[in-house]
Amino acid sequence: MADKKFVVGILGAGRIGKIHAANCAQIPGVKIKTIVDLKVDGLKDWAAKLGVEKLSTDPKDIFGDPEINAVLICSSTDTHAQFIVEAAKAKKDIFCEKPIDYDLKRIKDTLAAVAKAGVKLMIGFNRRFDHNHKRVRDAVVNGEIGKVHIVKVTSRDPSPPPIEYVKVSGGLFFDMTVHDWDMAAYLAGEEIVEIYAAGGVLVDPKIGQAGDIDTAAVVLKFKSGALGLVDNSRQAVYGYDQRTEVFGSKGGAWVDNDFPNQARIYSDKIVGGDKMHHFFLERYMGSYTAELQEFFDCLRNNKNPSVGGIDGLNAVLVAMAAMKSLKENRPVKISEVNV
Amino acid sequence: MADKKFVVGILGAGRIGKIHAANCAQIPGVKIKTIVDLKVDGLKDWAAKLGVEKLSTDPKDIFGDPEINAVLICSSTDTHAQFIVEAAKAKKDIFCEKPIDYDLKRIKDTLAAVAKAGVKLMIGFNRRFDHNHKRVRDAVVNGEIGKVHIVKVTSRDPSPPPIEYVKVSGGLFFDMTVHDWDMAAYLAGEEIVEIYAAGGVLVDPKIGQAGDIDTAAVVLKFKSGALGLVDNSRQAVYGYDQRTEVFGSKGGAWVDNDFPNQARIYSDKIVGGDKMHHFFLERYMGSYTAELQEFFDCLRNNKNPSVGGIDGLNAVLVAMAAMKSLKENRPVKISEVNV
Amino acid sequence: MADKKFVVGILGAGRIGKIHAANCAQIPGVKIKTIVDLKVDGLKDWAAKLGVEKLSTDPKDIFGDPEINAVLICSSTDTHAQFIVEAAKAKKDIFCEKPIDYDLKRIKDTLAAVAKAGVKLMIGFNRRFDHNHKRVRDAVVNGEIGKVHIVKVTSRDPSPPPIEYVKVSGGLFFDMTVHDWDMAAYLAGEEIVEIYAAGGVLVDPKIGQAGDIDTAAVVLKFKSGALGLVDNSRQAVYGYDQRTEVFGSKGGAWVDNDFPNQARIYSDKIVGGDKMHHFFLERYMGSYTAELQEFFDCLRNNKNPSVGGIDGLNAVLVAMAAMKSLKENRPVKISEVNV
Amino acid sequence: MADKKFVVGILGAGRIGKIHAANCAQIPGVKIKTIVDLKVDGLKDWAAKLGVEKLSTDPKDIFGDPEINAVLICSSTDTHAQFIVEAAKAKKDIFCEKPIDYDLKRIKDTLAAVAKAGVKLMIGFNRRFDHNHKRVRDAVVNGEIGKVHIVKVTSRDPSPPPIEYVKVSGGLFFDMTVHDWDMAAYLAGEEIVEIYAAGGVLVDPKIGQAGDIDTAAVVLKFKSGALGLVDNSRQAVYGYDQRTEVFGSKGGAWVDNDFPNQARIYSDKIVGGDKMHHFFLERYMGSYTAELQEFFDCLRNNKNPSVGGIDGLNAVLVAMAAMKSLKENRPVKISEVNV
Repeated sequence: MADKKFVVGILGAGRIGKIHAANCAQIPGVKIKTIVDLKVDGLKDWAAKLGVEKLSTDPKDIFGDPEINAVLICSSTDTHAQFIVEAAKAKKDIFCEKPIDYDLKRIKDTLAAVAKAGVKLMIGFNRRFDHNHKRVRDAVVNGEIGKVHIVKVTSRDPSPPPIEYVKVSGGLFFDMTVHDWDMAAYLAGEEIVEIYAAGGVLVDPKIGQAGDIDTAAVVLKFKSGALGLVDNSRQAVYGYDQRTEVFGSKGGAWVDNDFPNQARIYSDKIVGGDKMHHFFLERYMGSYTAELQEFFDCLRNNKNPSVGGIDGLNAVLVAMAAMKSLKENRPVKISEVNV
Repeated sequence: MADKKFVVGILGAGRIGKIHAANCAQIPGVKIKTIVDLKVDGLKDWAAKLGVEKLSTDPKDIFGDPEINAVLICSSTDTHAQFIVEAAKAKKDIFCEKPIDYDLKRIKDTLAAVAKAGVKLMIGFNRRFDHNHKRVRDAVVNGEIGKVHIVKVTSRDPSPPPIEYVKVSGGLFFDMTVHDWDMAAYLAGEEIVEIYAAGGVLVDPKIGQAGDIDTAAVVLKFKSGALGLVDNSRQAVYGYDQRTEVFGSKGGAWVDNDFPNQARIYSDKIVGGDKMHHFFLERYMGSYTAELQEFFDCLRNNKNPSVGGIDGLNAVLVAMAAMKSLKENRPVKISEVNV
Repeated sequence: MADKKFVVGILGAGRIGKIHAANCAQIPGVKIKTIVDLKVDGLKDWAAKLGVEKLSTDPKDIFGDPEINAVLICSSTDTHAQFIVEAAKAKKDIFCEKPIDYDLKRIKDTLAAVAKAGVKLMIGFNRRFDHNHKRVRDAVVNGEIGKVHIVKVTSRDPSPPPIEYVKVSGGLFFDMTVHDWDMAAYLAGEEIVEIYAAGGVLVDPKIGQAGDIDTAAVVLKFKSGALGLVDNSRQAVYGYDQRTEVFGSKGGAWVDNDFPNQARIYSDKIVGGDKMHHFFLERYMGSYTAELQEFFDCLRNNKNPSVGGIDGLNAVLVAMAAMKSLKENRPVKISEVNV
Repeated sequence: MADKKFVVGILGAGRIGKIHAANCAQIPGVKIKTIVDLKVDGLKDWAAKLGVEKLSTDPKDIFGDPEINAVLICSSTDTHAQFIVEAAKAKKDIFCEKPIDYDLKRIKDTLAAVAKAGVKLMIGFNRRFDHNHKRVRDAVVNGEIGKVHIVKVTSRDPSPPPIEYVKVSGGLFFDMTVHDWDMAAYLAGEEIVEIYAAGGVLVDPKIGQAGDIDTAAVVLKFKSGALGLVDNSRQAVYGYDQRTEVFGSKGGAWVDNDFPNQARIYSDKIVGGDKMHHFFLERYMGSYTAELQEFFDCLRNNKNPSVGGIDGLNAVLVAMAAMKSLKENRPVKISEVNV
């Protein structure tokens, strides 16, 4: 099995699709055969360098190609569910960017199709594969901190997305915090069962006019009784702020941000250092490599990916409960929205 | 005014009374004349070294002594309100340990008596005077972080108090988090208007049997719309964990814990350092000195203490709302309990 | 010029040759045509994946190929001088691993051949391109620290090389510290003019029996009067220890080591973190990428590489003076050995 | 023995004498009876507050008082040797500020007088009692780092002393580095046997005109073969820079500077923190307390102080060798100057 070859089709060659394609090219035994996008004119040189055989605008060139045994879905969110179902029907293993969908029924139908087909599905919660957050999770798994009591996630973007995007994004809890719902559950190693979400419009009133919030403070309750705290902002002027912490019966583990270098500069006024990384591409590049390595490792050794469809579903459920909590200003059980 | 002399009476010579007495002795122009405690037999040598004239078990030896112009109330909580009122009637300026009381009406009556007498009252929220937290607050005051959006307080004790104490303490939100209510309001520079408090019994089931919790996660809403997050535990096995953070429109400020030294030890297994300070005496000693310096500085220059009776009242109101929130599992406005 | 294409020949496909080849493959406009090594049997799959046209055991397949316009010399040290001369004669630009040679006359003859041919020569002092040390150098260049007064380099390997290697390596000052001579000169931005080197055999007596030392403490004098300190050990059991510092009239800049992650683990015994990177491949990988980027950037824009033949010569001169200083236990001027 | 009382006489009530007096007043069982200074007019209020019985300008009021059993010598350096001898003759235990003297013969005669009298003598190398450097030394003593291979001391003042002081100070190696000679020997736990000292005038040419240097880089050899590196500057514009490191067969230990607080401030330009402490009073205050505690603890329990006359002698010997090395630009053995 160790020398199994993978022939890959990639749907979507935008920013994230290109990252995954470049990472595929580094993994032994993996060949990208076909890339499908809405437009492929500008992709030829890039694809040639990666040894891609075919560029196409027709997804059938992937789903209908019997040689292709794994697909990466990197297209826009509204296509995820449909592409997963088609890939599953074609018996191809699937790596799909988060979220699966925003509609609960459609997510469940999609996961049912995957289960029926018996293919593997991995969801791209790449932060789980980050060297820092993974070390915190390892501290839980290794028993270094005992039983988990408190999980904390700080997640702040450097600047808000365009207002046009805010209007269609599903809101901060779906678009941005979705990573943090998954991170909290990942770190705790268990399910979130209740949430209280407070939010405000403190960065830009236009965000409020678009019906969204830009700042959030959240309390989570896990199944075991452990508690969680998440805070978000759409605008940390100092960079992309990504910190996590787990506290337990035997100790605690936390990670500071990554910085571009370890230098400190001393003057007669200040002790200074360079700012943290600007945004997710700089900060999380290593995690994209690591998640694809796991994906192909799971295919090769017939293991289940550590982050599957259920994790994609759970993050959306928590986002839905968070929205409800924010609107009704009360704690909401996940079971209330999981109907 | 700069050479005004203060003649001080101290009520209570337990652990905290002794700390304040020692600090008084270092402040120029301040003389401790009389110390009153329930028992004074074991105090003679100690008091002599500080130059104290009289040891007594009768508070009248302080309130009835016209030479004494300032009193420090360091006795048990149930005596605070009464002693404040007596000192106010005797026209003596007052430094009182927190909390003023746990009964809302009694607190308000006490503050009314102080107002009527026109004396100064400072409440011993010593953490405001800590070099670390103060630097975070200074970042707000100096405009370094702009408008406040998020305030965070992590406060964890090294080990729970005896169960007998837990039973009479008023509960974690009154006994332990009371400092954090004040810290959050201090850092934000504004009033807390609503609270959602989640709690659990994760450290010791006996604490639950005594009707209390040992772990908490809290969301605060400030008047301006800023949000706060507080997390507590009765047992951080690694030491006394005290961290704060303020995040705003122009940046962020946060403080790590203090450690006994800056050394790092490298072996073939680990990069290690000594643990943080064990508990509040080691951690906050400097803040006790600084708060008394401010108290006498206010008396000398006829300024109002930066932390007064209203701050004592506010912290108790938030604790009451937190208790109500915990019981009813819903956000509670401070105005609901301020009746 | 911006679209100039480079056709590359690589001499030597050992560990470092493979790293450079992989980095070449990422640089736009660069194509590896030919790789020459003593044996090429095991290289086929690897070379195919990089799009290499030809594998050969004959250097003439590179030097005689008119299409090839840049060569990377990654073969053993004893071949460097000869290959540089041949490449220069063939009018190909040259990237060569350090050191050029250990024989002063041969180095000078080699540099003369390069000068005569008018080709570019870059020496692989990769550490200059490390994100950390570069930030310290930038602090000098930017004027952040004013005029340089003191430069410090700490450089310790995780474990000694095999004794057989020690015997032929030229000694610690040529084999290991050669990087630090270059680093010190790079950070200061000026020439070393005198050196005092003390050394000892503290790690392994076999190293002493082989005629070498394993621990060193060195004082440098720069042309401007600035002073330098270098310390080395062949065995830091905690990992690969690489720190630099520059101190000057307006401040200081220093860098700590890189670590695999930013996590800290707290237990009831210790504050711990994972060890620094194990050795140069983990620690300096980014610098290999950055130096090749500069090399091709220089070729493309007809700039001189920031680290040229003279830097290779200077590092060897300092190593020679260090050896002389160690043997004679006295400070030695670089001019004494530059004959 | 545990309740032994100490009656203390203090010679010299300048800055350092006042610090020691205040610390004495905090130590149980210690009473300051008499303070002698050249002028005592301005000392009355201060002395009264400490409970001092007598102020005098005549040293005989201390040496001739049979009740006084311990003396602290805090007067100017030129009086140290004489006062030690007088105190020894009067059978009083002695704490003396460094240095004992700058004249080798006088130091040796003084130590002989102490030995003959059988009294205790502790020299005020206060930095040994600093929480940071002590933790590094503890790592050696505890075996955490194994056998010592390299010791490093960085010691930089915030700004040069007045030129008039430079002229009479004995030079940087006697006046400033004397602490570092002692620190290096303390950390290594062994004697320095050889030194090579390089120096320069990089801060202020007036210092050079006064015959001194303002910047130094030094290599030390210890008896065991371990190596040391010391660097000094008279002017670190960013504050008082005090770092130490020990590296050995099993690992390493190093300390960063102390800072006034642990806060970090993040803006859109920088990650900043407050500067390190300004100078020795802020930085080393705790060490003055700790050294006096050891002194009286030694008297109480009849132990020898951890830093005695021989340490005072050794530091001066190293300073003499450093001066010789600087002048002759060659390594100098300590035995060359110990004549």
